[in-house]
Amino acid sequence: MSEESNVVYIGRKPPMSYVMAIITSFTGSDAKNVTLKARGRSITTAVDAAEITRRRFMKELNIGEIIIGTEEIQQEEGGTRNVSTIEITLTRG
Amino acid sequence: MSEESNVVYIGRKPPMSYVMAIITSFTGSDAKNVTLKARGRSITTAVDAAEITRRRFMKELNIGEIIIGTEEIQQEEGGTRNVSTIEITLTRG
Repeated sequence: MSEESNVVYIGRKPPMSYVMAIITSFTGSDAKNVTLKARGRSITTAVDAAEITRRRFMKELNIGEIIIGTEEIQQEEGGTRNVSTIEITLTRG
Repeated sequence: MSEESNVVYIGRKPPMSYVMAIITSFTGSDAKNVTLKARGRSITTAVDAAEITRRRFMKELNIGEIIIGTEEIQQEEGGTRNVSTIEITLTRG
């Protein structure tokens, strides 16, 4: 279970930036899996990046596990608020 | 396999509107599963609605299958563009 695995954190850049990061992550290592992690509004970008990578660039990729969850964020003005999260694992066939 | 199953389409309203729709969908029928379907920017709202329903209102719910995909949309000005989609199935335990 010590198989190499990489994580790409998805933020507010356009999906194509993360597509490049995913491809680099696969080609620059022996990783069989790359996991995309995103929260809040970036969740859509994570799905876009996964789909574009798989359909346009690495057709041998499969969608593995998809996990959704909730994270508590500390707010500067005090208190917390909840934000949704997603993890999408891409697997090289 | 003729088990009753309901679909809630997620659009651009606030997540809480869809939380109400999900709860109504479960309580107004014998459905064991409710599937949320969303595309584009509404994907985040779908994850929010699933998480809020499960954590605040129906703690016996489990997240079932999550499927991501791509749909071709016909544009008014001609041609097509791709949009990402998600389907999240919630299962009553």
